[in-house]
This record gives sequence, C-alpha cells and structure tokens, in this order.
Amino acid sequence: MDQKPAVILIDPQMGENIGACARAMLNCGLSDLRLVRPRDGWPNERAEATSSGALEKMPPVNVYEKTEDALKDFNFVLATTARPRDMVKPVFDAAQAAAESAKRSMNGQKCAFLFGAERTGLTNEDIALSHGIITIPLNPGFTSLNIAQAVLLVSYEWSKHDLSAASTEIPAENLPAPHEKMHDLFVRFETELESGHFFRTDGQKPIMIRNLRNMLTRAEMTEQEIRTFHGVISALTGKKTNRPQE
Amino acid sequence: MDQKPAVILIDPQMGENIGACARAMLNCGLSDLRLVRPRDGWPNERAEATSSGALEKMPPVNVYEKTEDALKDFNFVLATTARPRDMVKPVFDAAQAAAESAKRSMNGQKCAFLFGAERTGLTNEDIALSHGIITIPLNPGFTSLNIAQAVLLVSYEWSKHDLSAASTEIPAENLPAPHEKMHDLFVRFETELESGHFFRTDGQKPIMIRNLRNMLTRAEMTEQEIRTFHGVISALTGKKTNRPQE
Repeated sequence: MDQKPAVILIDPQMGENIGACARAMLNCGLSDLRLVRPRDGWPNERAEATSSGALEKMPPVNVYEKTEDALKDFNFVLATTARPRDMVKPVFDAAQAAAESAKRSMNGQKCAFLFGAERTGLTNEDIALSHGIITIPLNPGFTSLNIAQAVLLVSYEWSKHDLSAASTEIPAENLPAPHEKMHDLFVRFETELESGHFFRTDGQKPIMIRNLRNMLTRAEMTEQEIRTFHGVISALTGKKTNRPQE
Repeated sequence: MDQKPAVILIDPQMGENIGACARAMLNCGLSDLRLVRPRDGWPNERAEATSSGALEKMPPVNVYEKTEDALKDFNFVLATTARPRDMVKPVFDAAQAAAESAKRSMNGQKCAFLFGAERTGLTNEDIALSHGIITIPLNPGFTSLNIAQAVLLVSYEWSKHDLSAASTEIPAENLPAPHEKMHDLFVRFETELESGHFFRTDGQKPIMIRNLRNMLTRAEMTEQEIRTFHGVISALTGKKTNRPQE
C-alpha cells in the first residue's frame, strides 16, 4: 500500500494525549500525525514523554491553524464522533472505516481520520468537511473513551489491512510430533498401566485406553515433550531408563 | 451470554494503568477485573482517577496473592504476550482470541485474559497455566504497547461477539475442568515425580515443572479425565487410592 492514512487531531488539549495517540498510531504502523490548533503549542514535552519514543521515530508532526489546511491533500476523510449527529453522512464502525480506507488507499487515495477535542469532540463544521463518520460501538452504559484509545481502535482496525504486517512463524521444534512417536508412548504407557492393575476389567480396558489416548492427543506433544513423558513414566514406576529427558 | 470473560492483571505497577484498564474494559462491556499482587496495594486513588468512573460502576475488584488463586474458577485462560515464548501453545491474535472465548462463553465456560506487568510481561510460569497465547500483531518496528491499550484491543474484539446469538452446546461434563482441579493434580503429580527422583537437579526442577504444566494444560482435561489421571498416577506408583476411576 503506497499511502497510509493520516490521523488529524483538532483542538487537542493535553500533550499527554497527543503523545499517547502517536504511540498508538505507530504501534499500528501509522506515522502521519497532524495537529490543528494544539492548545499548548508544539512541540510539547509531555507529548514526547507519553509517546514512549514514537514521536522521535515518526516524521515531523505538521501543525495547522485551520482544519481545511490540514485536510488539503486528502481524497477521503472520516470524522470520528462519539454520538450521532444530525447530518446525512455514511456511518462506519471502526472495522468498516478501516476496510473502506484500506481499499481507497490501494487505489492511490490519501485518507485521513479526524478526531476532535477531548471533551467536546469535533464541531459540526469539521464534520461537514468529512466524507463519512466513524462511530465506535461501545457499551451504551459507559461510552467515555479516551482520545488515544479511539485513535488506537481505528489504527488497529486499519493495521489488519496493512499487507506489511508481520506473520508469526512457529519454530519447527514446537510442532506436534509425528504420530509414530505418540504411538510408541501410548504402547509403553498402557503396558505400565496394565502392570499397575489400572484396567480393572478386560471389558473396560479398550474404552479406558481410548479415553487416555484421546486426552493425551489433545495435548499435541512435541518430540521433546514425549521424551519427557517417557521420563515421567520411568520416575513414577521406579525404573531408570536411558531415555533422554530434559 | 451468561459468562463474560474476566481480565486478570498480574503484578500491575501503576495505579493509573489499572484505572485505564478498567475504563477500557467497561467501554467494551466487561466488568470482572482481578488483580494479582498490585504493587501499590488496593484500592488505589490513582486508579480511581484514571478509570473515569468505571471502577465505581463495576463490581468490586478481587485481589489475590497467587496467580492460581485468581484462576481457580476459570475453564479457559489466554495469556497476552508481546513476544513469542519458547512454549508450545496455540497462538491467537486479538480477534481470534475473542472469537474463541466468545464461543466458549456461550457454552458456559468461564474465560479469562491474563496480562503481565507493564515492563516485563507475564512470567513463563504464568503462561504455562494458560491454554493459549494472545499476541497482538503490531508494527514490528514499534511494539511498545501500553497495558491499557492491550486490554482495550482484546476487550474491543470481544465486544464484537457480545450480542451474537448462535451457540453450539457442549455437555457440561465435557467442559475443561476449573483450574483449581488442575492445580490439585499438578501438586500431586509433582510430589510423586519428586519421590521418583525425576527432577535430576534442583536447578532444573522449576523449568521441568513449567514444561509439564504447560503440556498438561494444553490437554484441557475434563474433571473425569483429571480423576482418571489421578488413577494413572496411583497405578504407576503402585498406590491404591479411593479416587474414583473410569
């Protein structure tokens, strides 16, 4: 994706929140942060502190006097609002907003997410400049969402569409062992249980074996774990073996 | 859904973060918050302040000295980790973790999400008691996620399933046993292994115990299976017990 969306904070009050927004953005791979009329000016020491290093790693934050200047190079702008407004606009939840802007970004459009001041949110004038509204569905009994949390949720949903996101590889030694190794373990385990008179009657034995195999199979043991389990059997039955243990 | 998941913070340091976690949870409709060894004790004024009223609206927070006490009534536990650990566990991203625990909740299982201390995260011992790992995919160049942000993302993903209706019933006897029963099994199993000289050196013992607990936790044993495993131990060690077997 060529163009990643920008986050634009309008009339942000506390530097701490701006820094926390930067941190949340960079967590999710976004780095174009723009501010319109930050109350305490810019740069801001408290923002540096709460960004946990994010502001240093991001390109410089651009600061504007007017919303329209901050928006001027964007093709598609979504405004985040906590409550529904009396305006006819397409409404997206965070996941839909992310999907829509990811699709547009891939088509070369520049997208931005707007967030308003901590207590008052965006003005209707700013919302009027946006192509749609993002409303994050929250517990109707408790909707007080911190601005950095709102930025995080939108950025996080966007990051699901970012093709550069890293995949988590499973190391080979953590794979479940081939069945053969489990089978050898079962045979030894059941032989020892037989010696210990675990199977009360011959009639119950097949069902009990099936249940034990079912339970141990669910553990999806690695080869190392199977060796450990052999060691467990040896220790419990008082037999020393040469089987490697951990 | 009868049972909503709990959030368990282990060794949380700053009250501010605990309050922010409570706020994020309640935003998403979760309200069972548990703390294990909060550094500054409980209740905590700073937590009250940053919760923005969430703590007052939630049931009282339960505080524990040991992880296993906090876990004892849960059937399914997921541990949040920032980095991959050398442990064989199912790995979920936040959305998959939410889907899995929502499905289990609808079947009557009590689920919990574990979060570790701010800087150090969860210990491997705590992770070994969990059925799976939640890893939130983040920008590989900047993964420093605040604990409240991590709680928010998991709670938010969970909230997407809150109203969903469909449920496939699992008979109660097939549910994974509450953690308490597993804990009793672990204690007995490890005592018997100690008698059998399984732990070659004292230095290796904690790691070997962790690996065994990890492996057995993955099997998600039912209460019946735990009884069977007690019977297995009795049979292998040549001790007759009155524990019911299959």
